[in-house]
Amino acid sequence: MALGFFGPGEDYKLVVLVRTDLDMGKGKIAAQVGHASVECAIRAENKDRKAFTQWMNGGQKKVVLKVANMEEMVRYMNEARSRGLYTVMVTDAGRTQIAPGSSTCVGIGPAPESEIDRVTGGLKML
Amino acid sequence: MALGFFGPGEDYKLVVLVRTDLDMGKGKIAAQVGHASVECAIRAENKDRKAFTQWMNGGQKKVVLKVANMEEMVRYMNEARSRGLYTVMVTDAGRTQIAPGSSTCVGIGPAPESEIDRVTGGLKML
Repeated sequence: MALGFFGPGEDYKLVVLVRTDLDMGKGKIAAQVGHASVECAIRAENKDRKAFTQWMNGGQKKVVLKVANMEEMVRYMNEARSRGLYTVMVTDAGRTQIAPGSSTCVGIGPAPESEIDRVTGGLKML
Repeated sequence: MALGFFGPGEDYKLVVLVRTDLDMGKGKIAAQVGHASVECAIRAENKDRKAFTQWMNGGQKKVVLKVANMEEMVRYMNEARSRGLYTVMVTDAGRTQIAPGSSTCVGIGPAPESEIDRVTGGLKML
């Protein structure tokens, strides 16, 4: 049984799930991950000060993971939400490379690593 | 002569310069750009509220540009600083892919597009 105890020393991280089916270039992907990271960081700074501070003090660890398509991305997002994790979905204006309104990635956290791993532990790094 | 007048409607953006000589994978690049974006955003939120608000309201525009190596990256960073723009250099812990302590990218802004373009207008998108 997981006791859900998170000591003061546990690392916090932010993960970003990126769709691979949109065939975005690496600069495009980087900008989308930047959006997700900023949204998650600003929200934590204003609404979850402990997570923000722990995460920043730990070097703002970030991990970029891949999901096959929209369906898979939403499934992981919903699972994260159902466990009380903050999530943000980034939707691109679509001025370049992809169709307007495409959702490109989802940010989760920052939160304790073990909490996030319970949701996204099976996903591979991009 | 440039008068330096920036109306309330001018778009703000953040640019991130990424070194191409480190041969980082796309997930690695995305995480580094995420670091730079968060640092620039948090700093603006706390120290340059106008820039932060204009940038966020405009959809937090981000552009990822490429530089050939460390020397070129530092040259652009110094040029940006000399014009009063905020810059942050991201140095990686180097646990994966690259040597510890490598500087991977530089974030500039958020600031009015025209001010940033005066410095980085000649660089190509990643």
